[in-house]
Amino acid sequence: MVIMQEDMNYTITTLASHSCLQILKGAKDEGFATCAIATSDKTAFYGNFKFIDEIIQIETYSRFYSLEEKLKAKNAIVVPHGSFVAYLGEGGDEKISLPYFGNKKVLKIEGDRVLQHEWLRKAKLNLPKAYSQIEEVDKPVIVKLYGAKGGSGYFTAVNKKQLTEKLKKFHFQDKKYFIQEYIIGVPVYLQYFYSPLQQKVELMGIDRRYETNVDGLGRLPSDIQLNYPLEPSYTVIGNFPIVLRESLLPKAYQMADKVVASSKKIIPPKGLIGPFCLETIITPNQEFYCIEISCRIVAGTNLYINGSPYTDLYYGQPMSTGRRIAKEIREAITQRRLDEILD
Amino acid sequence: MVIMQEDMNYTITTLASHSCLQILKGAKDEGFATCAIATSDKTAFYGNFKFIDEIIQIETYSRFYSLEEKLKAKNAIVVPHGSFVAYLGEGGDEKISLPYFGNKKVLKIEGDRVLQHEWLRKAKLNLPKAYSQIEEVDKPVIVKLYGAKGGSGYFTAVNKKQLTEKLKKFHFQDKKYFIQEYIIGVPVYLQYFYSPLQQKVELMGIDRRYETNVDGLGRLPSDIQLNYPLEPSYTVIGNFPIVLRESLLPKAYQMADKVVASSKKIIPPKGLIGPFCLETIITPNQEFYCIEISCRIVAGTNLYINGSPYTDLYYGQPMSTGRRIAKEIREAITQRRLDEILD
Amino acid sequence: MVIMQEDMNYTITTLASHSCLQILKGAKDEGFATCAIATSDKTAFYGNFKFIDEIIQIETYSRFYSLEEKLKAKNAIVVPHGSFVAYLGEGGDEKISLPYFGNKKVLKIEGDRVLQHEWLRKAKLNLPKAYSQIEEVDKPVIVKLYGAKGGSGYFTAVNKKQLTEKLKKFHFQDKKYFIQEYIIGVPVYLQYFYSPLQQKVELMGIDRRYETNVDGLGRLPSDIQLNYPLEPSYTVIGNFPIVLRESLLPKAYQMADKVVASSKKIIPPKGLIGPFCLETIITPNQEFYCIEISCRIVAGTNLYINGSPYTDLYYGQPMSTGRRIAKEIREAITQRRLDEILD
Repeated sequence: MVIMQEDMNYTITTLASHSCLQILKGAKDEGFATCAIATSDKTAFYGNFKFIDEIIQIETYSRFYSLEEKLKAKNAIVVPHGSFVAYLGEGGDEKISLPYFGNKKVLKIEGDRVLQHEWLRKAKLNLPKAYSQIEEVDKPVIVKLYGAKGGSGYFTAVNKKQLTEKLKKFHFQDKKYFIQEYIIGVPVYLQYFYSPLQQKVELMGIDRRYETNVDGLGRLPSDIQLNYPLEPSYTVIGNFPIVLRESLLPKAYQMADKVVASSKKIIPPKGLIGPFCLETIITPNQEFYCIEISCRIVAGTNLYINGSPYTDLYYGQPMSTGRRIAKEIREAITQRRLDEILD
Repeated sequence: MVIMQEDMNYTITTLASHSCLQILKGAKDEGFATCAIATSDKTAFYGNFKFIDEIIQIETYSRFYSLEEKLKAKNAIVVPHGSFVAYLGEGGDEKISLPYFGNKKVLKIEGDRVLQHEWLRKAKLNLPKAYSQIEEVDKPVIVKLYGAKGGSGYFTAVNKKQLTEKLKKFHFQDKKYFIQEYIIGVPVYLQYFYSPLQQKVELMGIDRRYETNVDGLGRLPSDIQLNYPLEPSYTVIGNFPIVLRESLLPKAYQMADKVVASSKKIIPPKGLIGPFCLETIITPNQEFYCIEISCRIVAGTNLYINGSPYTDLYYGQPMSTGRRIAKEIREAITQRRLDEILD
Repeated sequence: MVIMQEDMNYTITTLASHSCLQILKGAKDEGFATCAIATSDKTAFYGNFKFIDEIIQIETYSRFYSLEEKLKAKNAIVVPHGSFVAYLGEGGDEKISLPYFGNKKVLKIEGDRVLQHEWLRKAKLNLPKAYSQIEEVDKPVIVKLYGAKGGSGYFTAVNKKQLTEKLKKFHFQDKKYFIQEYIIGVPVYLQYFYSPLQQKVELMGIDRRYETNVDGLGRLPSDIQLNYPLEPSYTVIGNFPIVLRESLLPKAYQMADKVVASSKKIIPPKGLIGPFCLETIITPNQEFYCIEISCRIVAGTNLYINGSPYTDLYYGQPMSTGRRIAKEIREAITQRRLDEILD
């Protein structure tokens, strides 16, 4: 990690996609210079926003590393988001030599469905059953390709027979996939921020993803569905804001605390840093099942550019997750503790 | 009711659950001292919020009454919410001897499905047909256990035959239940505040409940549903914000006005005080059917900690229902009219 | 168009429905006098809002024209909304002789499904297939009556056979209707504002309509649906706020830019002015299909009385579409360019 001095001016930078607008708006609100790295098809769009001081055009995102010298001269700090893996490839974050917000080692575990499942199991979260053998399947399941992003590359099967058929139909045979119990309930996505400076978790907001086509299925009457069978797909294209029953909030905090604590054991000493998201299903008896974790800012936080009902409880000003990141960086600079939050 | 003097300092208090955060945040914003009564599993969570001046730990919520002397010394005013019945038991509110926001007599009527139905009928709201005999059932129905809360203890049946089967299956025979026509449409929950000081109803916000598992059903294709039959459950775990077609708003106000006016006849002289919620289904011909009324602050108001599109129309500042309650109390203190809003 | 001088005081006026509250609140926030035209059943409701300076009562909305002299004396500017056609009849806007925000000629094209389809095709948007012959139908379709408003007068059919049956059943034979491919995906409504002064499009917000009964269907299990067959209806009664995946936003802007550019060719020289909405379905491969355009302020903007996550990115203050209209008018007055935005 590059050593930086308190009296330097820093530039917050990220790739132009996913939650870039929120991150750079938040950075500007906290007094930083801002820079977006954009491919040519995106520069015009990102040029609309005054809080972006500079847009550096790039041929492809994989050429990001060639900008590092230039960015170093600006005292850039990279804030990653959920599209970094898609744009830089697996392991792409690790190759970044600029100061990087968060803990890169967490991403390796997040990126491997088996290691992730193991982590959440150690954190003692309620998890859907994971099947290693097709033969064991005894209830509806959801099958997820390794590396599937944003909900694409998933399918559901009601039983062993249908599972076998669909694995063939979707050519999953030669691929790595993960068979998970399909929990009957409703999806709820919990957006958190863990502050290493304050050693505290904050709930930043809650959303429900908007997935195509699965969230359009219910609008088709059953007789039409049976006459025109559709395979549900789970491509995330947006998010709905929601709030949670207050009696479930203590549980939501406990889950997050357990995840953070276990991350410090599994990836010592720092563990998880900054924003993360627990993707859960809540069942009729009000149990959370954690189906996935994301260890960076998630797109659902874009709902709360101006704060959420939850951040409105803690902060006297609009606080997005993007701004919360910038605030943590600013405080770390002031306290000369940047090394605790950067990698 | 305890007589209080204008120059005293008051403390707003409530049980730590449901909409406690909103109520105490609102109380603090209006200048009150605040106190949460929490069981040991909840004190840590509620300790996160700076607007809560004091948390009094309690073994079980049923021991609330033992705190009354202590709370009296703080000039406490109790603001009840939708979990009071669940925590204090039926009739539990009546036993509270502290100054209590609202009209306890309304709760008896709200709590009895037959009396509630009768009240709404007298208020001339559109109601789903209520069946007193299984034999009368001639269309899909929803069956609700007496005292069922938060949507648990409900089931649907498509006709008389299925109704009879399900009553047996779910062991409803020896219980008190209520058979209601299942209105085909979409659920809309209207959050109101009736100010006895201003003698006026305000629409505070609108939501749609998020219920598990019924709101996950539509994500399962019909062929999966038929192969793996599921009984829908209606456990409320959260809320979605919505706005209503503006042309329906005058009707929404008229319904509320009729409910308030009839409450003054049925529970004279005060009738309904403060927040209430009409739980409706809107049909394709844009008719409201009122399926239930809640006569206290509902959890859906937690969406609007920072105000709703509707309160943004009346107020120049963020106005939650929790804050609106505190504002009414503050104004009543100033005008020496506390007796008009407390019980 | 009436010539107006910069030093005159203007009054923003509209019919009391749809998005009237938002329009007049926005006008007041930008310093205008405001006036609502209301039928007797609505005056009480609109009287609740302090930002409405005057309510002119009218017997029926069709008598609007009789008020024109009176409104001229107030230097009224009419801001139309999506209920003008329903209230004034087809061609009703054209008969307005008062200064009118927007381009009336656009409405003729919007109002004719064939011309509208032609326009969107020329703008090179992705469109669902339009069938002129029943015989051509080879996949599920949605059939829309000409002039159907707010989603009523629509039905779906899974194939040619069912289409023929339903056309008969719903007595569409003698009516004008439009057969459109039913795109499998999820609905997303994009709210834009085109500023002729700045020659720029802004994304003002995004919503998903709440339609009865189609959005209640998914809550009915398949076995109930099959035992009690329901015809879905699409009556819009409200809206949900959503945000879109950031990587889809550049595409959302491109679509809007293409629509604005082609509007200048089709309705020269001004083309589209002010607020419009692209009503889209997003498919699993993240393609937008534009199913309709609305060329005035849509009701979904009522979600964002206090600004949306998108306007929060551009503006340092709450900016509804209603306020954005008033801001454009105010700037046009200052720059003596009112003729560029009025008709």
